[in-house]
Amino acid sequence: MATLVEEALRNSVQSIVQRDSNLAQKTFDGEDRINKLEITIDDMCLKLLALRQPMAVDLRFITSAMKIVTDLERMGDQAVNIAERAVSLNQEPQLKPYIDIPRMAEIAQTMVKDVLDAFVNGDSKLARSVCERDDIVDGLNDQVFRELLTFMIEDPKTITRAVHLIIVSRCLERIADHATNVAEDVIFMVDARVIKHHADVREQEEKGGTKSQAPNPR
Amino acid sequence: MATLVEEALRNSVQSIVQRDSNLAQKTFDGEDRINKLEITIDDMCLKLLALRQPMAVDLRFITSAMKIVTDLERMGDQAVNIAERAVSLNQEPQLKPYIDIPRMAEIAQTMVKDVLDAFVNGDSKLARSVCERDDIVDGLNDQVFRELLTFMIEDPKTITRAVHLIIVSRCLERIADHATNVAEDVIFMVDARVIKHHADVREQEEKGGTKSQAPNPR
Repeated sequence: MATLVEEALRNSVQSIVQRDSNLAQKTFDGEDRINKLEITIDDMCLKLLALRQPMAVDLRFITSAMKIVTDLERMGDQAVNIAERAVSLNQEPQLKPYIDIPRMAEIAQTMVKDVLDAFVNGDSKLARSVCERDDIVDGLNDQVFRELLTFMIEDPKTITRAVHLIIVSRCLERIADHATNVAEDVIFMVDARVIKHHADVREQEEKGGTKSQAPNPR
Repeated sequence: MATLVEEALRNSVQSIVQRDSNLAQKTFDGEDRINKLEITIDDMCLKLLALRQPMAVDLRFITSAMKIVTDLERMGDQAVNIAERAVSLNQEPQLKPYIDIPRMAEIAQTMVKDVLDAFVNGDSKLARSVCERDDIVDGLNDQVFRELLTFMIEDPKTITRAVHLIIVSRCLERIADHATNVAEDVIFMVDARVIKHHADVREQEEKGGTKSQAPNPR
Protein backbone atom coordinates (compact mmCIF):
# COMPACT_ATOMS: atom_id res chain seq x y z
CA MET A 1 0.00 0.00 0.00
CA ALA A 2 2.82 2.38 0.90
CA THR A 3 4.60 1.68 -2.38
CA LEU A 4 1.42 2.48 -4.30
CA VAL A 5 1.00 5.73 -2.37
CA GLU A 6 4.61 6.72 -3.05
CA GLU A 7 4.07 5.96 -6.73
CA ALA A 8 0.84 7.98 -6.85
CA LEU A 9 2.58 10.91 -5.23
CA ARG A 10 5.61 10.72 -7.53
CA ASN A 11 3.45 10.54 -10.65
CA SER A 12 1.27 13.47 -9.57
CA VAL A 13 4.25 15.71 -8.87
CA GLN A 14 6.13 14.65 -12.00
CA SER A 15 2.99 15.34 -13.99
CA ILE A 16 3.38 19.01 -13.02
CA VAL A 17 7.16 19.19 -13.36
CA GLN A 18 7.33 17.36 -16.71
CA ARG A 19 4.02 18.86 -17.89
CA ASP A 20 2.82 15.35 -18.77
CA SER A 21 -0.83 14.69 -17.99
CA ASN A 22 -0.38 10.97 -18.70
CA LEU A 23 1.41 10.75 -15.38
CA ALA A 24 -1.57 12.36 -13.65
CA GLN A 25 -3.74 9.68 -15.25
CA LYS A 26 -1.56 7.01 -13.63
CA THR A 27 -2.33 8.55 -10.25
CA PHE A 28 -6.07 8.45 -11.01
CA ASP A 29 -5.79 4.83 -12.15
CA GLY A 30 -3.95 3.78 -9.00
CA GLU A 31 -6.43 5.25 -6.51
CA ASP A 32 -8.79 2.32 -6.49
CA ARG A 33 -6.14 -0.21 -5.46
CA ILE A 34 -5.02 2.02 -2.58
CA ASN A 35 -8.60 2.38 -1.40
CA LYS A 36 -9.17 -1.38 -1.54
CA LEU A 37 -5.98 -2.06 0.41
CA GLU A 38 -7.11 0.28 3.18
CA ILE A 39 -10.23 -1.81 3.64
CA THR A 40 -8.37 -5.13 3.40
CA ILE A 41 -5.70 -4.17 5.93
CA ASP A 42 -8.23 -2.69 8.33
CA ASP A 43 -10.19 -5.91 8.17
CA MET A 44 -7.07 -8.03 8.79
CA CYS A 45 -6.21 -5.90 11.83
CA LEU A 46 -9.69 -6.26 13.28
CA LYS A 47 -9.56 -10.03 12.81
CA LEU A 48 -6.17 -10.16 14.52
CA LEU A 49 -7.52 -8.14 17.44
CA ALA A 50 -10.57 -10.38 17.74
CA LEU A 51 -8.92 -13.76 17.27
CA ARG A 52 -5.46 -13.33 18.79
CA GLN A 53 -6.08 -10.81 21.55
CA PRO A 54 -2.59 -9.39 21.22
CA MET A 55 -0.80 -7.64 24.08
CA ALA A 56 1.73 -4.84 24.55
CA VAL A 57 3.87 -4.23 21.46
CA ASP A 58 1.69 -6.45 19.24
CA LEU A 59 -1.41 -4.56 20.28
CA ARG A 60 0.33 -1.26 19.60
CA PHE A 61 1.52 -2.58 16.25
CA ILE A 62 -1.98 -3.49 15.11
CA THR A 63 -3.72 -0.35 16.33
CA SER A 64 -0.92 1.75 14.82
CA ALA A 65 -1.33 -0.06 11.51
CA MET A 66 -5.04 0.78 11.56
CA LYS A 67 -4.22 4.46 12.00
CA ILE A 68 -1.42 4.38 9.45
CA VAL A 69 -3.56 2.96 6.64
CA THR A 70 -5.98 5.85 7.17
CA ASP A 71 -3.14 8.32 6.72
CA LEU A 72 -1.80 6.46 3.70
CA GLU A 73 -5.19 6.49 2.03
CA ARG A 74 -5.47 10.24 2.63
CA MET A 75 -2.01 10.80 1.18
CA GLY A 76 -3.34 8.97 -1.87
CA ASP A 77 -6.30 11.39 -1.93
CA GLN A 78 -3.90 14.33 -1.81
CA ALA A 79 -1.92 12.85 -4.71
CA VAL A 80 -5.19 12.69 -6.67
CA ASN A 81 -5.85 16.35 -5.82
CA ILE A 82 -2.38 17.26 -7.08
CA ALA A 83 -2.93 15.23 -10.25
CA GLU A 84 -6.21 17.07 -10.89
CA ARG A 85 -4.43 20.42 -10.62
CA ALA A 86 -1.65 19.07 -12.87
CA VAL A 87 -4.14 18.36 -15.65
CA SER A 88 -5.47 21.95 -15.43
CA LEU A 89 -2.00 23.48 -15.22
CA ASN A 90 -0.68 21.48 -18.17
CA GLN A 91 -3.38 22.92 -20.42
CA GLU A 92 -1.95 26.43 -20.06
CA PRO A 93 1.52 27.90 -20.55
CA GLN A 94 3.81 27.35 -17.58
CA LEU A 95 3.47 30.24 -15.12
CA LYS A 96 7.09 30.17 -13.94
CA PRO A 97 9.93 27.67 -13.60
CA TYR A 98 8.90 25.38 -10.76
CA ILE A 99 11.51 25.53 -8.00
CA ASP A 100 9.98 25.47 -4.52
CA ILE A 101 7.20 23.04 -5.36
CA PRO A 102 9.58 20.28 -6.55
CA ARG A 103 11.68 20.95 -3.44
CA MET A 104 8.65 20.63 -1.17
CA ALA A 105 7.61 17.53 -3.08
CA GLU A 106 11.02 15.95 -2.64
CA ILE A 107 11.07 16.58 1.10
CA ALA A 108 7.49 15.33 1.48
CA GLN A 109 8.26 12.22 -0.57
CA THR A 110 11.37 11.46 1.47
CA MET A 111 9.33 11.92 4.65
CA VAL A 112 6.82 9.36 3.37
CA LYS A 113 9.57 6.94 2.37
CA ASP A 114 11.48 7.32 5.64
CA VAL A 115 8.45 7.01 7.88
CA LEU A 116 7.51 3.75 6.19
CA ASP A 117 11.06 2.45 6.59
CA ALA A 118 10.81 3.53 10.23
CA PHE A 119 7.57 1.56 10.58
CA VAL A 120 8.96 -1.58 8.93
CA ASN A 121 12.22 -1.48 10.90
CA GLY A 122 10.75 -0.19 14.17
CA ASP A 123 13.16 2.75 13.97
CA SER A 124 11.81 5.50 16.22
CA LYS A 125 14.89 7.68 15.68
CA LEU A 126 14.17 7.87 11.95
CA ALA A 127 10.51 8.55 12.77
CA ARG A 128 11.56 11.48 14.97
CA SER A 129 13.65 12.91 12.13
CA VAL A 130 10.51 12.82 9.96
CA CYS A 131 8.62 14.92 12.52
CA GLU A 132 11.42 17.47 12.49
CA ARG A 133 11.16 17.96 8.73
CA ASP A 134 7.51 18.99 8.91
CA ASP A 135 8.49 22.58 9.75
CA ILE A 136 10.63 22.87 6.60
CA VAL A 137 7.67 21.93 4.43
CA ASP A 138 5.42 24.37 6.31
CA GLY A 139 7.98 27.12 5.69
CA LEU A 140 8.19 26.34 1.98
CA ASN A 141 4.40 26.35 1.77
CA ASP A 142 4.29 29.88 3.23
CA GLN A 143 7.02 30.97 0.82
CA VAL A 144 5.21 29.55 -2.22
CA PHE A 145 2.01 31.24 -1.07
CA ARG A 146 3.62 34.66 -0.74
CA GLU A 147 5.47 34.38 -4.05
CA LEU A 148 2.38 33.38 -5.98
CA LEU A 149 0.41 36.19 -4.37
CA THR A 150 2.85 38.71 -5.85
CA PHE A 151 2.52 37.04 -9.26
CA MET A 152 -1.25 37.39 -9.14
CA ILE A 153 -1.14 41.00 -8.01
CA GLU A 154 1.31 41.95 -10.75
CA ASP A 155 -0.54 40.13 -13.50
CA PRO A 156 -4.17 39.04 -13.08
CA LYS A 157 -3.80 36.71 -16.08
CA THR A 158 -1.75 34.43 -13.81
CA ILE A 159 -4.47 34.12 -11.17
CA THR A 160 -6.03 30.80 -12.16
CA ARG A 161 -2.68 29.07 -12.54
CA ALA A 162 -1.31 30.63 -9.35
CA VAL A 163 -4.31 29.43 -7.35
CA HIS A 164 -3.82 25.91 -8.71
CA LEU A 165 -0.21 26.03 -7.59
CA ILE A 166 -1.16 27.36 -4.14
CA ILE A 167 -3.47 24.39 -3.77
CA VAL A 168 -0.77 21.95 -4.93
CA SER A 169 1.55 23.45 -2.34
CA ARG A 170 -1.09 22.98 0.37
CA CYS A 171 -1.61 19.36 -0.72
CA LEU A 172 2.12 18.73 -0.31
CA GLU A 173 1.98 20.36 3.09
CA ARG A 174 -0.92 18.04 4.04
CA ILE A 175 1.08 15.02 2.84
CA ALA A 176 3.95 16.05 5.12
CA ASP A 177 1.40 16.36 7.94
CA HIS A 178 0.15 12.84 7.28
CA ALA A 179 3.75 11.56 7.25
CA THR A 180 4.23 13.28 10.61
CA ASN A 181 1.07 11.62 11.95
CA VAL A 182 2.43 8.25 10.86
CA ALA A 183 5.78 9.07 12.46
CA GLU A 184 4.01 9.76 15.75
CA ASP A 185 2.24 6.41 15.48
CA VAL A 186 5.56 4.66 14.80
CA ILE A 187 7.19 6.31 17.82
CA PHE A 188 4.25 5.23 19.95
CA MET A 189 4.43 1.71 18.57
CA VAL A 190 8.18 1.36 19.19
CA ASP A 191 8.75 3.34 22.36
CA ALA A 192 5.22 3.23 23.83
CA ARG A 193 5.51 7.02 24.16
CA VAL A 194 3.02 9.60 22.95
CA ILE A 195 4.86 12.54 21.40
CA LYS A 196 1.77 13.99 19.72
CA HIS A 197 0.99 17.54 20.77
CA HIS A 198 4.13 17.56 22.97
CA ALA A 199 2.50 15.04 25.29
CA ASP A 200 5.87 13.63 26.37
CA VAL A 201 7.30 17.03 27.26
CA ARG A 202 4.15 17.83 29.16
CA GLU A 203 4.34 14.58 31.10
CA GLN A 204 7.95 15.25 32.08
CA GLU A 205 7.08 18.74 33.20
CA GLU A 206 4.17 17.48 35.24
CA LYS A 207 6.50 15.01 36.91
CA GLY A 208 8.84 17.93 37.64
CA GLY A 209 11.52 16.51 35.34
CA THR A 210 13.74 18.60 33.10
CA LYS A 211 12.31 19.63 29.79
CA SER A 212 13.43 17.19 27.11
CA GLN A 213 14.19 18.22 23.56
CA ALA A 214 10.81 19.05 22.12
CA PRO A 215 9.57 16.98 19.19
CA ASN A 216 7.86 18.77 16.39
CA PRO A 217 4.41 20.01 17.48
CA ARG A 218 1.36 19.14 15.48
CA MET B 1 -14.25 16.20 22.75
CA ALA B 2 -16.91 16.47 20.06
CA THR B 3 -18.56 19.37 21.87
CA LEU B 4 -15.24 21.20 22.01
CA VAL B 5 -14.65 20.59 18.30
CA GLU B 6 -18.14 21.87 17.44
CA GLU B 7 -17.46 24.95 19.58
CA ALA B 8 -14.06 25.56 17.91
CA LEU B 9 -15.67 25.29 14.51
CA ARG B 10 -18.59 27.58 15.40
CA ASN B 11 -16.27 30.22 16.84
CA SER B 12 -13.92 30.15 13.85
CA VAL B 13 -16.76 30.57 11.35
CA GLN B 14 -18.53 33.22 13.42
CA SER B 15 -15.25 35.08 13.69
CA ILE B 16 -15.40 35.58 9.92
CA VAL B 17 -19.14 36.25 9.68
CA GLN B 18 -19.27 38.68 12.62
CA ARG B 19 -15.79 40.07 11.85
CA ASP B 20 -14.83 39.49 15.49
CA SER B 21 -11.29 38.21 16.01
CA ASN B 22 -11.98 37.53 19.69
CA LEU B 23 -13.98 34.52 18.54
CA ALA B 24 -10.96 33.28 16.56
CA GLN B 25 -8.94 33.59 19.75
CA LYS B 26 -11.41 31.28 21.50
CA THR B 27 -10.70 28.66 18.84
CA PHE B 28 -6.94 29.03 19.41
CA ASP B 29 -7.45 28.76 23.18
CA GLY B 30 -9.54 25.60 22.86
CA GLU B 31 -7.09 23.64 20.70
CA ASP B 32 -4.98 22.34 23.53
CA ARG B 33 -7.87 20.67 25.35
CA ILE B 34 -8.97 18.93 22.13
CA ASN B 35 -5.43 17.66 21.56
CA LYS B 36 -5.18 16.36 25.12
CA LEU B 37 -8.50 14.56 24.83
CA GLU B 38 -7.35 12.77 21.69
CA ILE B 39 -4.42 11.30 23.62
CA THR B 40 -6.54 10.45 26.67
CA ILE B 41 -9.26 8.69 24.68
CA ASP B 42 -6.75 6.81 22.56
CA ASP B 43 -5.05 5.61 25.70
CA MET B 44 -8.35 4.49 27.24
CA CYS B 45 -9.20 2.55 24.08
CA LEU B 46 -5.84 0.78 24.08
CA LYS B 47 -6.26 -0.17 27.74
CA LEU B 48 -9.73 -1.53 27.01
CA LEU B 49 -8.37 -3.58 24.12
CA ALA B 50 -5.53 -4.94 26.26
CA LEU B 51 -7.42 -5.63 29.46
CA ARG B 52 -10.91 -6.59 28.31
CA GLN B 53 -10.23 -8.26 24.97
CA PRO B 54 -13.58 -7.16 23.59
CA MET B 55 -15.38 -9.00 20.81
CA ALA B 56 -17.70 -8.17 17.90
CA VAL B 57 -19.60 -4.91 18.37
CA ASP B 58 -17.50 -3.88 21.38
CA LEU B 59 -14.31 -4.38 19.41
CA ARG B 60 -15.73 -2.38 16.51
CA PHE B 61 -16.87 0.33 18.94
CA ILE B 62 -13.40 0.75 20.39
CA THR B 63 -11.46 0.65 17.13
CA SER B 64 -14.00 3.05 15.61
CA ALA B 65 -13.57 5.41 18.54
CA MET B 66 -9.80 5.39 17.95
CA LYS B 67 -10.35 6.40 14.35
CA ILE B 68 -13.01 8.96 15.21
CA VAL B 69 -10.84 10.86 17.71
CA THR B 70 -8.22 11.26 14.98
CA ASP B 71 -10.82 12.82 12.70
CA LEU B 72 -12.16 15.02 15.49
CA GLU B 73 -8.70 16.32 16.27
CA ARG B 74 -8.15 17.13 12.60
CA MET B 75 -11.46 18.95 12.43
CA GLY B 76 -10.11 20.98 15.35
CA ASP B 77 -6.98 21.71 13.29
CA GLN B 78 -9.13 22.89 10.40
CA ALA B 79 -11.07 25.17 12.75
CA VAL B 80 -7.73 26.67 13.81
CA ASN B 81 -6.82 27.18 10.14
CA ILE B 82 -10.13 28.98 9.59
CA ALA B 83 -9.58 31.11 12.70
CA GLU B 84 -6.12 32.12 11.40
CA ARG B 85 -7.65 33.25 8.12
CA ALA B 86 -10.39 35.05 10.06
CA VAL B 87 -7.82 37.17 11.90
CA SER B 88 -6.22 38.18 8.57
CA LEU B 89 -9.57 38.84 6.90
CA ASN B 90 -10.87 40.93 9.79
CA GLN B 91 -7.95 43.35 9.45
CA GLU B 92 -9.13 44.42 5.99
CA PRO B 93 -12.44 45.71 4.63
CA GLN B 94 -14.93 42.94 3.90
CA LEU B 95 -14.51 41.72 0.32
CA LYS B 96 -18.15 40.88 -0.24
CA PRO B 97 -21.19 39.87 1.78
CA TYR B 98 -20.51 36.31 2.88
CA ILE B 99 -23.24 34.02 1.56
CA ASP B 100 -21.92 30.67 0.40
CA ILE B 101 -19.29 30.29 3.10
CA PRO B 102 -21.81 30.57 5.97
CA ARG B 103 -24.03 28.11 4.06
CA MET B 104 -21.16 25.66 3.68
CA ALA B 105 -20.26 26.17 7.30
CA GLU B 106 -23.80 25.46 8.43
CA ILE B 107 -24.00 22.24 6.44
CA ALA B 108 -20.57 21.13 7.63
CA GLN B 109 -21.46 21.93 11.24
CA THR B 110 -24.74 20.02 11.01
CA MET B 111 -22.84 17.07 9.50
CA VAL B 112 -20.49 17.10 12.48
CA LYS B 113 -23.36 17.36 14.94
CA ASP B 114 -25.40 14.62 13.24
CA VAL B 115 -22.53 12.19 12.87
CA LEU B 116 -21.77 12.45 16.56
CA ASP B 117 -25.42 11.90 17.41
CA ALA B 118 -25.28 8.91 15.05
CA PHE B 119 -22.24 7.59 16.92
CA VAL B 120 -23.78 8.06 20.36
CA ASN B 121 -27.12 6.53 19.36
CA GLY B 122 -25.71 3.88 17.00
CA ASP B 123 -27.87 5.36 14.25
CA SER B 124 -26.42 4.19 10.93
CA LYS B 125 -29.29 5.75 8.96
CA LEU B 126 -28.37 9.20 10.22
CA ALA B 127 -24.72 8.42 9.47
CA ARG B 128 -25.65 7.55 5.90
CA SER B 129 -27.46 10.89 5.52
CA VAL B 130 -24.24 12.61 6.60
CA CYS B 131 -22.33 10.88 3.78
CA GLU B 132 -24.91 12.07 1.29
CA ARG B 133 -24.41 15.70 2.28
CA ASP B 134 -20.69 15.64 1.45
CA ASP B 135 -21.44 16.28 -2.24
CA ILE B 136 -23.38 19.46 -1.43
CA VAL B 137 -20.38 20.89 0.42
CA ASP B 138 -18.05 19.88 -2.43
CA GLY B 139 -20.35 21.68 -4.88
CA LEU B 140 -20.43 24.84 -2.78
CA ASN B 141 -16.63 24.73 -2.49
CA ASP B 142 -16.34 24.70 -6.30
CA GLN B 143 -18.85 27.54 -6.54
CA VAL B 144 -16.98 29.68 -4.00
CA PHE B 145 -13.72 28.99 -5.82
CA ARG B 146 -15.09 30.10 -9.20
CA GLU B 147 -16.77 33.19 -7.80
CA LEU B 148 -13.67 34.35 -5.98
CA LEU B 149 -11.58 33.75 -9.07
CA THR B 150 -13.72 36.26 -10.98
CA PHE B 151 -13.33 38.77 -8.12
CA MET B 152 -9.56 38.46 -8.29
CA ILE B 153 -9.45 38.77 -12.07
CA GLU B 154 -11.66 41.87 -12.04
CA ASP B 155 -9.81 43.58 -9.22
CA PRO B 156 -6.31 42.49 -8.18
CA LYS B 157 -6.71 44.41 -4.91
CA THR B 158 -9.04 41.64 -3.78
CA ILE B 159 -6.51 38.84 -4.33
CA THR B 160 -5.17 38.41 -0.81
CA ARG B 161 -8.63 38.38 0.74
CA ALA B 162 -10.03 36.13 -1.97
CA VAL B 163 -7.24 33.58 -1.45
CA HIS B 164 -7.93 33.59 2.30
CA LEU B 165 -11.60 32.89 1.56
CA ILE B 166 -10.72 30.12 -0.92
CA ILE B 167 -8.68 28.47 1.81
CA VAL B 168 -11.50 28.87 4.36
CA SER B 169 -13.81 27.21 1.87
CA ARG B 170 -11.38 24.32 1.42
CA CYS B 171 -11.09 23.93 5.20
CA LEU B 172 -14.87 23.62 5.44
CA GLU B 173 -14.80 21.06 2.66
CA ARG B 174 -12.14 19.11 4.61
CA ILE B 175 -14.29 19.24 7.74
CA ALA B 176 -17.19 17.76 5.77
CA ASP B 177 -14.77 15.05 4.56
CA HIS B 178 -13.77 14.25 8.14
CA ALA B 179 -17.45 14.09 9.14
CA THR B 180 -17.98 11.66 6.25
CA ASN B 181 -15.04 9.56 7.46
CA VAL B 182 -16.60 9.42 10.91
CA ALA B 183 -19.96 8.52 9.37
CA GLU B 184 -18.32 5.58 7.59
CA ASP B 185 -16.81 4.44 10.89
CA VAL B 186 -20.22 4.70 12.59
CA ILE B 187 -21.87 2.63 9.84
CA PHE B 188 -19.14 0.03 10.18
CA MET B 189 -19.54 0.00 13.95
CA VAL B 190 -23.32 -0.38 13.85
CA ASP B 191 -23.89 -2.55 10.78
CA ALA B 192 -20.46 -4.23 10.51
CA ARG B 193 -20.48 -3.09 6.88
CA VAL B 194 -17.74 -1.21 5.08
CA ILE B 195 -19.25 1.48 2.84
CA LYS B 196 -15.94 3.30 2.30
CA HIS B 197 -14.95 3.59 -1.35
CA HIS B 198 -18.21 1.85 -2.36
CA ALA B 199 -16.95 -1.38 -0.83
CA ASP B 200 -20.48 -2.60 -0.12
CA VAL B 201 -21.68 -1.99 -3.67
CA ARG B 202 -18.59 -3.75 -4.96
CA GLU B 203 -19.20 -6.73 -2.73
CA GLN B 204 -22.81 -7.04 -3.90
CA GLU B 205 -21.74 -6.81 -7.50
CA GLU B 206 -19.10 -9.46 -6.99
CA LYS B 207 -21.75 -11.69 -5.46
CA GLY B 208 -23.88 -11.04 -8.55
CA GLY B 209 -26.53 -9.26 -6.46
CA THR B 210 -28.42 -6.20 -7.64
CA LYS B 211 -26.70 -2.89 -7.23
CA SER B 212 -27.88 -1.29 -3.99
CA GLN B 213 -28.36 2.41 -3.60
CA ALA B 214 -24.84 3.75 -3.66
CA PRO B 215 -23.58 5.63 -0.64
CA ASN B 216 -21.51 8.69 -1.21
CA PRO B 217 -18.05 7.76 -2.55
CA ARG B 218 -14.92 8.95 -0.82
